[in-house]
Amino acid sequence: MRNKRDVYLDDRPWEAALAGLLEHLEAIGYLVPGVPEEVPAEDALGRVTAEPVFARHSSPHYNASAMDGIAVDSSLTFGASEASPKQIRLGPRAQVVDTGDPMPPGCDAVIMIEDVHFVEDDLFEITSAAAPWQHVRAIGEDVVATEMILPANHRIRPMDIGGMLAGGVTGVKVYPRPRVALLPTGTELVQPGTDLKPGDIVEYNTRVLGAMVRSWGGEPLRWPITEDNWDSLQNSLLHAVEQADIVVINAGSSAGREDYTAQLIRELGTVLTHGAAIKPGKPVILGEVKGKPVIGVPGYPVSAYLVMELFVQPLVYKKLGLVPPAPATTEAIISRKMPSPMGVEEFVRVKLGQVGEKIIATPISRGAGVIMSLVRADGMLRIPRLSEGYRAGETVTVELMRPLAEVRQTTVVIGSHDMALDVLANHLRRKFPDAGLASANVGSLGGLAAIKRGECHCAGTHLLDEDTGEYNISYVQRLLGDRPVILLNLVYRQQGLLVAKGNPLNIKGLADLAREGIRFINRQRGAGTRILLDYRLKQLGIQPDSIYGYNREEYTHMAVAAAVASGSADAGLGILAAANALGLDFVPVVEERYDLCIPGEYWDTPYIKRLLEVLATPEFKRQVTALGGYDLRNCGEIMYRQGI
Amino acid sequence: MRNKRDVYLDDRPWEAALAGLLEHLEAIGYLVPGVPEEVPAEDALGRVTAEPVFARHSSPHYNASAMDGIAVDSSLTFGASEASPKQIRLGPRAQVVDTGDPMPPGCDAVIMIEDVHFVEDDLFEITSAAAPWQHVRAIGEDVVATEMILPANHRIRPMDIGGMLAGGVTGVKVYPRPRVALLPTGTELVQPGTDLKPGDIVEYNTRVLGAMVRSWGGEPLRWPITEDNWDSLQNSLLHAVEQADIVVINAGSSAGREDYTAQLIRELGTVLTHGAAIKPGKPVILGEVKGKPVIGVPGYPVSAYLVMELFVQPLVYKKLGLVPPAPATTEAIISRKMPSPMGVEEFVRVKLGQVGEKIIATPISRGAGVIMSLVRADGMLRIPRLSEGYRAGETVTVELMRPLAEVRQTTVVIGSHDMALDVLANHLRRKFPDAGLASANVGSLGGLAAIKRGECHCAGTHLLDEDTGEYNISYVQRLLGDRPVILLNLVYRQQGLLVAKGNPLNIKGLADLAREGIRFINRQRGAGTRILLDYRLKQLGIQPDSIYGYNREEYTHMAVAAAVASGSADAGLGILAAANALGLDFVPVVEERYDLCIPGEYWDTPYIKRLLEVLATPEFKRQVTALGGYDLRNCGEIMYRQGI
Repeated sequence: MRNKRDVYLDDRPWEAALAGLLEHLEAIGYLVPGVPEEVPAEDALGRVTAEPVFARHSSPHYNASAMDGIAVDSSLTFGASEASPKQIRLGPRAQVVDTGDPMPPGCDAVIMIEDVHFVEDDLFEITSAAAPWQHVRAIGEDVVATEMILPANHRIRPMDIGGMLAGGVTGVKVYPRPRVALLPTGTELVQPGTDLKPGDIVEYNTRVLGAMVRSWGGEPLRWPITEDNWDSLQNSLLHAVEQADIVVINAGSSAGREDYTAQLIRELGTVLTHGAAIKPGKPVILGEVKGKPVIGVPGYPVSAYLVMELFVQPLVYKKLGLVPPAPATTEAIISRKMPSPMGVEEFVRVKLGQVGEKIIATPISRGAGVIMSLVRADGMLRIPRLSEGYRAGETVTVELMRPLAEVRQTTVVIGSHDMALDVLANHLRRKFPDAGLASANVGSLGGLAAIKRGECHCAGTHLLDEDTGEYNISYVQRLLGDRPVILLNLVYRQQGLLVAKGNPLNIKGLADLAREGIRFINRQRGAGTRILLDYRLKQLGIQPDSIYGYNREEYTHMAVAAAVASGSADAGLGILAAANALGLDFVPVVEERYDLCIPGEYWDTPYIKRLLEVLATPEFKRQVTALGGYDLRNCGEIMYRQGI
Repeated sequence: MRNKRDVYLDDRPWEAALAGLLEHLEAIGYLVPGVPEEVPAEDALGRVTAEPVFARHSSPHYNASAMDGIAVDSSLTFGASEASPKQIRLGPRAQVVDTGDPMPPGCDAVIMIEDVHFVEDDLFEITSAAAPWQHVRAIGEDVVATEMILPANHRIRPMDIGGMLAGGVTGVKVYPRPRVALLPTGTELVQPGTDLKPGDIVEYNTRVLGAMVRSWGGEPLRWPITEDNWDSLQNSLLHAVEQADIVVINAGSSAGREDYTAQLIRELGTVLTHGAAIKPGKPVILGEVKGKPVIGVPGYPVSAYLVMELFVQPLVYKKLGLVPPAPATTEAIISRKMPSPMGVEEFVRVKLGQVGEKIIATPISRGAGVIMSLVRADGMLRIPRLSEGYRAGETVTVELMRPLAEVRQTTVVIGSHDMALDVLANHLRRKFPDAGLASANVGSLGGLAAIKRGECHCAGTHLLDEDTGEYNISYVQRLLGDRPVILLNLVYRQQGLLVAKGNPLNIKGLADLAREGIRFINRQRGAGTRILLDYRLKQLGIQPDSIYGYNREEYTHMAVAAAVASGSADAGLGILAAANALGLDFVPVVEERYDLCIPGEYWDTPYIKRLLEVLATPEFKRQVTALGGYDLRNCGEIMYRQGI
């Protein structure tokens, strides 16, 4: 039996841990780029110069006419004026030239063809004198032989290729791409595409890390999966430090495993740090084996991503003689409270949206295991080590993971989730490639609250008034009475009980939820579905207490469906589309109305106009209908307006 | 004989010309991406999704322990507390699990290993109850089967590869890379690496344009050089429109040639625009042949680059279902007057540097033929069509061609040029990869004026006081009397006459410049070398008027040397290093002192400290000495200080 593990971990600020690693590597002479290699200049895009590049010849390498016209000995033209034009006959000291032609011997100026008047086939007239060297591109006007075209340690861009070739440089010495060995370890890992058994984990981390390395200018070397045994791991590691410049051991998903990795690195070399004060990514290992840095990267994908950025990116850039580019940032307003433990620098993925003048940052899942939190993020927010987090409304700096221009064009929908929003997002992106739709799922009431706080362009809402049986209107009046808003219908949809295929427990309706042995999975407080459930339970006289699982909450229809599909729950209230998606059975309970609540000030803006345009397309309607359980009879129609 | 050409050219704003092209292409159904192709998800970095990507399975696909610990049936733990601990024996409903292990049947919670105390080998004690589903990663916590992982028209990033593989998606439909045919035309063109004759032009444009296409996500197809004859050009064009999605005809450098290209496009298809109100790039041709856009790109490299950015980049992005990213910009102060013709949008390359609180933009060569102006530029400034230019000191928006962080770390040297500055720039970059040195050559007096205006961190200066024979000090006192400054010696250097190899005209000194048949090349007014020349001429009693070429000015030593090497001049005053670089003979005239003038406020900043560090290295001194004509006896020493 293992004992408490955390006591073994260091708790250093990541900057100190990185500095310690770099210091150690500097001391052993590692921190210099590899032996330069020569590549053709025209294929050198993105490579880094290993030495300054000097011009071999000048460009132009001869005195060239800069115009179409007539090259002349300028002394022939002196004295010409409007009052006394001068006629010159073509000959050795007056020759027709095109742009780029060499200047004929004896000629020292070019007269533009627009400025001459031919009076005979070979006789022309001018009305002004030519200054010596006018319209002549002198030798070396662009590049002078021996001048420096590019400094060392410069990443080559398209124009740099032109500069080199203009200067006669056809081959260029560049630093080799740093090779980064990526070692996936763990007996539970399987390759993508394998049929999955419970306990199998798809080895996708090294694919992500490899793409990161590639985007920095390094060369990823992906190792086969190494099983959890000492000899295999030792063999892989020894082989990797021979082949690569940097070795990354991805510790699988077992939190105990990095101890094992650390022990191995210590045996073969040095462990400089095991554990940093970051979240996620705490169990990182920084070490050195046979002169090469060895980084132990935790198994959870977000931890792995972050550790790569913090510790491996600087190494790759050092080996290229560069420093990593500073990420683009933006100021943003935190949309909700974000507590964070003291003593740990936390990295929070956020969605961003421009609402009014402000950019709003809304945190998304903080789970280190959720790769989709990186996929969906627009930015990364760092909560400093000596902070306990942020209050809602605080202004913070966010590192951008998507261009700010795109963020600015994104329609922000906060509220209840419906799959029609995904379809909408997709069609929107196709029709307006520079725009998009970002949705945050906080339930119907949460959406109206977000409107009140000015955090979104619209809110998805399906709130049943228990007294009138009407949807949304009374809630809007009560919660947003002073605000001009429009309720626009998106869909009507079936809500019902999601149950396992074949309905083995024979659940016929909400009344069955209180039965012994039925495990329910609920939606969170404030969700329209939760309100609907409570309303119906009251009508049926069922006490929430009597339902096993009433307090187990999920935030989306799909999460509820997933719980039922996994067998961890027997029933949940949700929409037909979610049941269909995961092959579940569906027991209808009610048809409900799902609207978008739109503040008046956004009604006439592109954020909303783009949505309306997409809602009007037959493809959108066809695709939503195909999901099942939807009726689009009022889609895009205004159901209610106030103050507008 | 050709006639005036400009009358044939349109003069539309480029936005209107582009809109016209897109409208035409939209009407013929061209503006949609190509037929999607499937690629392995793990190789899809940088590709663009052709359809939304939906998860094939959930991740995790089973309920997994989120901790190392003991999976339990939570009901066994109810009632445990500090006051009354509970003992549980390992068995089917209490099993040891590692992070990632599947939850055993009958277990619905995990107790962290840190929270249990083993009293026997298989008996443990707990002091708090486990909540159902605590420390369990439920099925679909990351990705739920059928959910949308990526929208269509999305450029794939490293984390997206992880999202896809986590959701069981191993192949992804992406848009094909748009193929861009690049046709270099011109009988005068030769391939890089060819031995050059006068009139030869190295065909490097399509290499630059190809790299641009590649960096946007397209596939460049470089055609062989097509000679200037109708049949060859027609064959190349017809072949290209068959093979590629976009055809670029690079019109060589003859300004007359694009008429020819336009005529051919008109014969085979449609010319929509010939000529746009831009500078450089005016003679652009936008057309369509057999359903494909055909763009005639002028031959000058800067024109070609700009036309690619304005007209071809949007096409490539359209074919990828994307819009081009907005360039990063910065506000900057114009350092000098920048007139520009009305009616034309001018694109000016600028150097940028942070001096004090301001970012200063200094224009560099405006010649369309100078590829080095793109290589050296930090940013591009657009002077609008309806503007006559900018006054010095105006605030403008500049599109960045180098990261702003790098600009901020750059030491800005304005003034006289010396080759030791190039060596300094190179060593600086090696020692401090995120810093750099930018030098603008405006002569010694121009440099002191730039200090006065607060536009640089230091100025290179070698100004001889005609009365005292002393360098720089009296000028600094006179021009910067109220400013604390330091004069730091960089080098002593030989100035002399640069003459052709073997000195065929037997030039022995300045007195010979007034001889019949000697063509001189001068430096610009304000240059220290020019002042030295004037001083010596006065001493010798020589009238400037008597020197042929006295009014022909160049801005650098190397440009003077190049003029002599090309035979367009017989002598120029300059430094030995420039003569050596181009294999010229050198007639010594005087040794002079070259200092850096540093305003007091920058003396203690990294901008200057980094320079001092490099000046102190033996490698710097060795490399400058090797250039020839230098003496570093006072290098890095303070020669004079005032007010500090």
